[in-house]
Amino acid sequence: MDIKLSTQPYKGTRDFYPREMKLRNWFFGKIRKSLECACFDEYDGPMLESLDLYAAKSGEELAKEQTYNFTDRGGRSLAIRPEMTPTVARMVAAKMGELNYPLKWFCISNMYRYERPQRGRLREFWQLNVDIFGCDTFEADLDVIESAVSLLRAFGADETMFRVHINNRRFFNDAIAAIAGTDVEGSRKVSKVVDRKNKVPRENYEADLKALGLDDEQIAKIDALYKMDVREATALCPDSVGAKELTALFDALEKTGLLKYCMFDFGIIRGLDYYTGTVFEVFDEAPENNRAMFGGGRYDNLVGLFVKNAKISGVGYGMGDVTLENFLTTHGLVPDLDNEGVKVLVTRFDDVPLEAYTALVDTMREGGVRAALYLGSKKFGKQIDFAAKENYSHVVIMGGSELAEGMVKIKNLATREETVVAHEALADFFANKTATSISYDALMEGKA
Amino acid sequence: MDIKLSTQPYKGTRDFYPREMKLRNWFFGKIRKSLECACFDEYDGPMLESLDLYAAKSGEELAKEQTYNFTDRGGRSLAIRPEMTPTVARMVAAKMGELNYPLKWFCISNMYRYERPQRGRLREFWQLNVDIFGCDTFEADLDVIESAVSLLRAFGADETMFRVHINNRRFFNDAIAAIAGTDVEGSRKVSKVVDRKNKVPRENYEADLKALGLDDEQIAKIDALYKMDVREATALCPDSVGAKELTALFDALEKTGLLKYCMFDFGIIRGLDYYTGTVFEVFDEAPENNRAMFGGGRYDNLVGLFVKNAKISGVGYGMGDVTLENFLTTHGLVPDLDNEGVKVLVTRFDDVPLEAYTALVDTMREGGVRAALYLGSKKFGKQIDFAAKENYSHVVIMGGSELAEGMVKIKNLATREETVVAHEALADFFANKTATSISYDALMEGKA
Repeated sequence: MDIKLSTQPYKGTRDFYPREMKLRNWFFGKIRKSLECACFDEYDGPMLESLDLYAAKSGEELAKEQTYNFTDRGGRSLAIRPEMTPTVARMVAAKMGELNYPLKWFCISNMYRYERPQRGRLREFWQLNVDIFGCDTFEADLDVIESAVSLLRAFGADETMFRVHINNRRFFNDAIAAIAGTDVEGSRKVSKVVDRKNKVPRENYEADLKALGLDDEQIAKIDALYKMDVREATALCPDSVGAKELTALFDALEKTGLLKYCMFDFGIIRGLDYYTGTVFEVFDEAPENNRAMFGGGRYDNLVGLFVKNAKISGVGYGMGDVTLENFLTTHGLVPDLDNEGVKVLVTRFDDVPLEAYTALVDTMREGGVRAALYLGSKKFGKQIDFAAKENYSHVVIMGGSELAEGMVKIKNLATREETVVAHEALADFFANKTATSISYDALMEGKA
Repeated sequence: MDIKLSTQPYKGTRDFYPREMKLRNWFFGKIRKSLECACFDEYDGPMLESLDLYAAKSGEELAKEQTYNFTDRGGRSLAIRPEMTPTVARMVAAKMGELNYPLKWFCISNMYRYERPQRGRLREFWQLNVDIFGCDTFEADLDVIESAVSLLRAFGADETMFRVHINNRRFFNDAIAAIAGTDVEGSRKVSKVVDRKNKVPRENYEADLKALGLDDEQIAKIDALYKMDVREATALCPDSVGAKELTALFDALEKTGLLKYCMFDFGIIRGLDYYTGTVFEVFDEAPENNRAMFGGGRYDNLVGLFVKNAKISGVGYGMGDVTLENFLTTHGLVPDLDNEGVKVLVTRFDDVPLEAYTALVDTMREGGVRAALYLGSKKFGKQIDFAAKENYSHVVIMGGSELAEGMVKIKNLATREETVVAHEALADFFANKTATSISYDALMEGKA
């Protein structure tokens, strides 16, 4: 065959070579452990879903534009999932009557969005999704925010590195109504303009509000909200349900010691047709990563897309692997992934039969030590080079004379220290080493 | 909105609720651990690839028929990956000069095949892929077969439950040539017919061979090969390179103690245009799962699809989650996944402030105990029901009087035993319990 194919991955997707994979496994392993410790259960769903799921939530045009979608041979319109929420809402709806509420669920899966790749945004990404279904009080909002703080703290992040910006969609609407003196429909129109405040030139923003009947004083009052703390802001409309929810949540954040990681931010809206109560984003405080890492909030009506009059409220968030990786790297929170702890290469000489070497490897593996036989016939020096490049911590050396004596030489590649031990003492030698170094297991299980 | 959407997953795909996910995480966790212990490194690639990758390997027609494929807005023909091998060959080709051979790589990823769903076959499945690149001697074949045996043994499977059926493609061709007395092109034609032996009626098989000039005696000799052991079979053409490879591999299997899991099987061919040496399949010995669980072998030319004259030989196998799950279930190798070890629910009463409860939860989590606060306002009995259904092992009970005394009551839900401890002794109480029960960590990390 003469065709030579491109070795590049498809635009906006990535190859995860072992080094990149180790990093991804490390951080998702730590996240999984943190969430499991808080009794969240993992789930997963299919990569392909009916396009209707996204059309029902976001409108058909947007769904078609933002997803990879196509028609199968049976005429079904399908999309590669661009997000997890419609899938999890479908799953909850499918077993609505038999599930044990409140559900605390998470998932870590890959998704596709059809967009122009840029820093922090790719076409294929992995996303953590955390949700609680079936608890409609602020305790669930607190629990999901706590889980987000805990998983960042598990990496060693502190309150100087990230901040949870919190708002409430009901409060947003009520505050706008209180300031603008509008009816429900009028407030909705004003809210749509305010939602675009930071995305359009100031003069257009003001002109749009004035077209809806607002004067300079009212516009200044809205501006002032962006600088207020939660007490000042909620004082504007104290009888608003949203204001009460915000107050209850911030009281609980204070009493449970989480407030130092959080702040009220009137600028957090997260679109206008989806969330119904608390909304929040977690920002990386490093100026070069000026993006929200997590975004989420409360949505009351998603399960209702599937089951008429279903009343199962959800609250949750999503977090992408790309922004998290930027965060961890920028703040120096990634450990030395080349230090894999004890990992032993058995080197080979021609005068020793293969099975004598595999017996050593078997002994070590049975003792829980990561071990492998060098595959190939290169010279000893090349075998040592291989071991060093592949992060082996030790090599085991056994020529014909060591075999006859029932001994092996162990060389520590970092210290160059050499030890001679009997074959039967090999696993024990490394069992002790494992206990005193960062083990690969601990690294992968997120304990390091 | 009035549209009520279907709650069914797309045909041939599955929803993984927490129970199913726990099973999948458990068995892939054990597999990951077994392979890491043998120094295999994990990698991953994108879900979407250029359709050309599959067309170059299998022909455009077959690639289009078997994959989900479509054209993106830039006119690129894409396919959702139906297998991992073209991706990993692309990745090796892309960094051919900088990688440290031999590579021992594995990956656990989801794939899609466009086919009619049936037992053991779905449209979306997860697949383990294990490969060694850059070692062209039998040691690599031995190492991948050893890894397959080890990971099944890690589940407690023994030689009565599975068998590795091994053949060699070079030997297959040479044996046919030796019996039929054909030249290279004639042998190729005969091989194509023999490859279909078990898929067509006997009379058609014989007629096809006779049309190629074979007589009854030659046909009987081919039949006899299916009943021979490796020594008898290789004696037919002892100078064949394939026969020598087979002999070397079986000698090594015997000397390393793996032979009891393996057998020679002339019926293992695995298609005719792909593999170049050793080929093997691992069969479930249970009659109701009459399928190969793993299939693989040596392929010399895949990296060459990308880089002209590239000489990087590979050997490896793939294994799907569906057949593995059938195997584990049939042979009783799945542990009680409802036993999650220590997992503690803090129940609530109205007369105790929230932060007094969250402090207990925090104490336990900091001590490494899985713990959560009951979310909601149901009565105590309902909270206990919730805990039992969600596999909590213990509940912590603290009313106003216990709070005042600085004590909590701990109830073991299995034994109904109750213990009263001081707040500060809570984490220690469970730390001891964790050590004496199957912990969730151990379960998830594949140690149970």
